[in-house]
Amino acid sequence: MTPISQLGEFGLIRHLTSGIKNVQPSTLYAVGDDAAVLNHEGKRTLVTTDLLLEGIHFNLEYVPLRHLGYKSVAVNVSDICAMNATPTQITVGLGVSSRFSVEDLEEFYAGVRIACEQYKIDLVGGDTCASVNGLTIAITCLGVADEQDIVYRNGAKPNDLICVTGNLGSAYLGLQLLERELRVFRNTQHGNLAKATEHDDAIQEKFEGREYLLERQLRPEARLDIVQALRKAGIRPTAMMDISDGLSSELFHICTQSKVGCDIYEDKLPIDYQAAALAEEMNLNIVTCALNGGEDYELLFTCDIHDYEKLVPLDDVYIIGHITPAEYESVQPDQPANLRLIPRNGNPLPLTAQGWNAFQAE
Amino acid sequence: MTPISQLGEFGLIRHLTSGIKNVQPSTLYAVGDDAAVLNHEGKRTLVTTDLLLEGIHFNLEYVPLRHLGYKSVAVNVSDICAMNATPTQITVGLGVSSRFSVEDLEEFYAGVRIACEQYKIDLVGGDTCASVNGLTIAITCLGVADEQDIVYRNGAKPNDLICVTGNLGSAYLGLQLLERELRVFRNTQHGNLAKATEHDDAIQEKFEGREYLLERQLRPEARLDIVQALRKAGIRPTAMMDISDGLSSELFHICTQSKVGCDIYEDKLPIDYQAAALAEEMNLNIVTCALNGGEDYELLFTCDIHDYEKLVPLDDVYIIGHITPAEYESVQPDQPANLRLIPRNGNPLPLTAQGWNAFQAE
Repeated sequence: MTPISQLGEFGLIRHLTSGIKNVQPSTLYAVGDDAAVLNHEGKRTLVTTDLLLEGIHFNLEYVPLRHLGYKSVAVNVSDICAMNATPTQITVGLGVSSRFSVEDLEEFYAGVRIACEQYKIDLVGGDTCASVNGLTIAITCLGVADEQDIVYRNGAKPNDLICVTGNLGSAYLGLQLLERELRVFRNTQHGNLAKATEHDDAIQEKFEGREYLLERQLRPEARLDIVQALRKAGIRPTAMMDISDGLSSELFHICTQSKVGCDIYEDKLPIDYQAAALAEEMNLNIVTCALNGGEDYELLFTCDIHDYEKLVPLDDVYIIGHITPAEYESVQPDQPANLRLIPRNGNPLPLTAQGWNAFQAE
Repeated sequence: MTPISQLGEFGLIRHLTSGIKNVQPSTLYAVGDDAAVLNHEGKRTLVTTDLLLEGIHFNLEYVPLRHLGYKSVAVNVSDICAMNATPTQITVGLGVSSRFSVEDLEEFYAGVRIACEQYKIDLVGGDTCASVNGLTIAITCLGVADEQDIVYRNGAKPNDLICVTGNLGSAYLGLQLLERELRVFRNTQHGNLAKATEHDDAIQEKFEGREYLLERQLRPEARLDIVQALRKAGIRPTAMMDISDGLSSELFHICTQSKVGCDIYEDKLPIDYQAAALAEEMNLNIVTCALNGGEDYELLFTCDIHDYEKLVPLDDVYIIGHITPAEYESVQPDQPANLRLIPRNGNPLPLTAQGWNAFQAE
């Protein structure tokens, strides 16, 4: 393994970004100066940023670096898709401690490049520096859209249909599976589960039949395909978000910002059979996983009820409920009163926005 | 002190970004959705990003959080200035461990806001999350420029004048002073030097007459004023960079990318008298400090010799040398042969680009 110090700062950046080809016409000048230069003439520029920290957002004991590179890009691309826009460029900031080698960073960047190819975006800049401990990843993604295409969180109105893409809870269950196997692995062996999964038959067996859940957790996709399909179908959502913190939490954001309520139906929630089976095995409530499990990076959107006929033929889009009238006069800004889950028995339950509070003491 | 967990993730972001007013006409939609929406119609959009890590880029034992917030913005604004462009928006990503309180983050954000006011830019998004240890700051800055105004590193040509703004080495000497006092402070007391400097007379005395050096290190300014002055004077630099890693290192970048050499004159290097006095006291070579000390965030630029008359009346701009013909055939890409320092005795010395290699073992 090559120590990073052997290449030095400039050498490392050159090494990691060499051979990167730009595909976006709006990329005028990328890596190699104080700033990248972009041309989004006559369009709106969108920007989103995410920080991913070791020990909080990922555990390198079971996350391969290549997947982590891919996921870091995908979660930012997902935020641009959630505005109904087209992602165009990213910047990548990396803080790396001395326990990482040049080969480790190559793996990470390999994942970044695969994601850039997948979403047809350009890597236009970044910052790579030493850190005291652990791996820090800061990604910023830019996108473009015509003014009239951009979809915010605040446009949902009563009677709008509520839709989600793909399925819910799978990424969360993938995480539970990885955490469980890591605990077993730690008790029996030394080393790195991420590397062991590639070589160890006993471990491969543990994951057999659950590959889909692992993929959902380790290598999620941004739903750029859905943004394109909606455009093709002539549907402009009234509000949209990506599901990173969990369906309940995102519905809370849309309803609060749109000043509306919602009814969603338990039996309409799209759930994968691998997820349902694992939830059963682990004594977890699959509906709770679907409502509050994060990191699915599917899209949640609302659209006018008149778009129903256009929506139905779309692949991988599921109508799960509808927006209800305002009546939004909650005293607690964090807990709107009229977000409801309609279970199979028909008696509405309040939908609680558990959200995510990593600052809470465990 | 209020623990961050009391506000929760959403509450914290609302709290820290409440009351922020946008001043840039291009800011269409800022904090509160998946991405910010910007309008840079008919102009070029520029983007730069920086990661600042505790223990590497700053030491909270002597850096007040408010100054750190200011500096984090200024160093990114500086990168946009270095392209001869106008900074317009920033995003701020923060990773904070549980040892930080809400009041700590308010201090940091107060500094961010002061910098936004200073440079007339908008805070349009970000990401705040828990970290396992320490403080992580990721800033992305956007800017705009007309196509013909943008200045890259690769436009310097033989006989161009080489200019720097302000003075060199002061930020580095400010750092040496802080590091020295911290060592003394650690041996005699417990606590935080940053807080002690505000209340402790004995410590205030140590810094007396050196306030300028501390300011240069703790609260550097981006030279947006110079970008504006150059425009007003009708000067378009042929190449430009900001001096973050040290003059030698930046000259190396400009000469390599422009495929030229340079002669710079020792007696032309602008040096502040406080810096010279402290270097003497600490047995440091002030010319080495000026050439290789980083973090001055002054501008280094080259411009056509015919602009000489326009340059001379400009405040705080110093001509330190000139660009020499190509002859650039070095075998080592990291060490061009024709970067020269002309000392007072007139015998040219090779200018070595020490650069900065934080990955090197101490």
